[in-house]
Amino acid sequence: MGDSILIIHGGGPTAVLNSSLYGAVTEAGKYPQIRHIYAARNGTGGLLREDFIELGQLPEEQLRLLLQTPGSAIGTSRDALEEEEYDRMAEILQRRGIGYVLFNGGNGTMDACGRLYKTCLQKGMDIKVMGIPKTMDNDIAVTDHSPGFGSAARYIAQSVREVCADVRGLPIHVVVVEASGRNAGWITAASALAGDGGGDGPDLIYLPERPFDEEQYIEDVRKLLEKKTGIVVVASEGLTDREGRPVVEPIFRTERATYFGDVSSHLAGLVIRRLGYKARGEKPGLLGRASILLQSPVDREEARLAGELACRAALEGESGRMVAFRRLSDSPYRMEPFLASIDEVMMYEATMPDAFINERGNGVTEAFREWCRPLLGEELPRMLSLN
Amino acid sequence: MGDSILIIHGGGPTAVLNSSLYGAVTEAGKYPQIRHIYAARNGTGGLLREDFIELGQLPEEQLRLLLQTPGSAIGTSRDALEEEEYDRMAEILQRRGIGYVLFNGGNGTMDACGRLYKTCLQKGMDIKVMGIPKTMDNDIAVTDHSPGFGSAARYIAQSVREVCADVRGLPIHVVVVEASGRNAGWITAASALAGDGGGDGPDLIYLPERPFDEEQYIEDVRKLLEKKTGIVVVASEGLTDREGRPVVEPIFRTERATYFGDVSSHLAGLVIRRLGYKARGEKPGLLGRASILLQSPVDREEARLAGELACRAALEGESGRMVAFRRLSDSPYRMEPFLASIDEVMMYEATMPDAFINERGNGVTEAFREWCRPLLGEELPRMLSLN
Repeated sequence: MGDSILIIHGGGPTAVLNSSLYGAVTEAGKYPQIRHIYAARNGTGGLLREDFIELGQLPEEQLRLLLQTPGSAIGTSRDALEEEEYDRMAEILQRRGIGYVLFNGGNGTMDACGRLYKTCLQKGMDIKVMGIPKTMDNDIAVTDHSPGFGSAARYIAQSVREVCADVRGLPIHVVVVEASGRNAGWITAASALAGDGGGDGPDLIYLPERPFDEEQYIEDVRKLLEKKTGIVVVASEGLTDREGRPVVEPIFRTERATYFGDVSSHLAGLVIRRLGYKARGEKPGLLGRASILLQSPVDREEARLAGELACRAALEGESGRMVAFRRLSDSPYRMEPFLASIDEVMMYEATMPDAFINERGNGVTEAFREWCRPLLGEELPRMLSLN
Repeated sequence: MGDSILIIHGGGPTAVLNSSLYGAVTEAGKYPQIRHIYAARNGTGGLLREDFIELGQLPEEQLRLLLQTPGSAIGTSRDALEEEEYDRMAEILQRRGIGYVLFNGGNGTMDACGRLYKTCLQKGMDIKVMGIPKTMDNDIAVTDHSPGFGSAARYIAQSVREVCADVRGLPIHVVVVEASGRNAGWITAASALAGDGGGDGPDLIYLPERPFDEEQYIEDVRKLLEKKTGIVVVASEGLTDREGRPVVEPIFRTERATYFGDVSSHLAGLVIRRLGYKARGEKPGLLGRASILLQSPVDREEARLAGELACRAALEGESGRMVAFRRLSDSPYRMEPFLASIDEVMMYEATMPDAFINERGNGVTEAFREWCRPLLGEELPRMLSLN
């Protein structure tokens, strides 16, 4: 059996993706039998090109910078893989003496993880393949939540809190903030926590789990404008209408995906055209997954732990599994990690349950707030309003 | 002479506007002869309505929260004032026993400050009127820089650094980040400091001080795409063409201003349509002036100091002046405050000098970096790239 370990990143980064890398590398470093700690440069493509980065020699003070480095320090990929490429990957792993492979990624990456696991099994190769969950969107099934989400939630909550403080008392009537998560509304919903501890929360929240009804939206905003100004709306980038069509036009198509215009400026434009009020859209976009200062400390620690546990499990002989989290209690926050079968995880998108969405579909419930609150890691900075 | 002081905020907030308020209130609290420390609720409108907030009784632990509160804790306004309203304001001040008025704002507010000063002078009223500079855009004349800019600069530098780290090695070809500052490119330019201390800086920077040439832009991006991917462009929200027309369409008009579409999505769209590459725009917008975690400590302290000095000067008998800063040296950073005549300040917009812009008009010079660097307050968090 191979005595080296390989770490592979797949999909878009999160604010704590590199924290999982830190956890995996430091754990691997504890085993004298591990000869090389490799990373595949830029994801599975790096494995297919045998383009490996040696991480085992890095001093701890360098490694620790991973905890505060956004993006993927070893690159990542979104390559869709052909069936025969799994065969090639397995052969490369065996030839290079790699006995342990850790995949860090979201649903697509867990699919690749499961396929490589099965390929190795079919070929009778003793290669352990483990998954580390990673998604800002929180759409991985089986686990209570995934590393990356807590920081995205903290980012949107603090950002919306700041936007609310800014527009309160200003002659801006309506601000629409666009949140990430095309099919799952978790991040959009987390903006509700802007109102915790003396802050101001958003007035309206529109999630992709509910069809977006333009008439209802205009009515919601119109009613609020009768009473106040400085209205803050948070909307998912993936809003669709009753027929499931995106509310914004496609602007770019590739073989794998279609890209759409900005929901924030579309919704701001509706207020301007239909109600005649000043409105503006804000779209922090990639910043929502890259902000180091708004990392959730709980999220960063769980990300580190997930990397550590996946590495340890592989070295203890586990394979075909992903580290997951089970919630024991909300307050005090207690969580226990466990290993889930990759089969249960693969390609199933977790969206917001009905119990977390209000009846009119323009806000969240207290149950959601209680579930989400501990993931932000610590209270948001306090503010003072005298106005 | 009146024995109360009134503080008025005007224009859009910054991340440290309330720090100046903190400085002014704590300084005023040191003078036993001051009977009331008032704020005008929502700017000059609050003065005209005699809608005052009493700040003198606030305990220090409440007041200190102002240092970490975005927006304007006492509200602000953008009201354009009629000539006769200055007479009314002066009469209200005298009747209410207010002998000291501090205006905290940008060019428009300094204009109001100067006019009220002259009105009081003409009427022979002994009312001291002082200005505290405040603008994220850094477009106030006379002073080396204004409180609010350093934090906006730190925000854009760290944000672009994070975006660069995120897109490096991803299949996103081009990201365009929109920066604030419609007529002055200071904030846009500050994004260059993303590259300090081991970070990645933007590839192209387009400032409002230079006409935007679509052909040159496409050529700049095309050339870069021959060599690399993950190109990061930072563009001012106020880009105009050779004829001075905004490069984006107007979307909303009021009596006072016209509002335009997003430059970020327009520039991303040009790459998609003309070059056929995937591109996306990000527009943090209001977040760039409201982020508490990205306050520059130097900026916060200078904002506090400006509030303190304006208050002290008024109580020492100064009037018709604004606190300003003179740069003594870049490295080590040494600055001295002084009082500038409001006449020298009023309604003149400071834009980037030629020496700070590169020849092709798509980046900044080393001289700008040296000038801007100390205003960010401390080094940006270090990162690790292994890729």
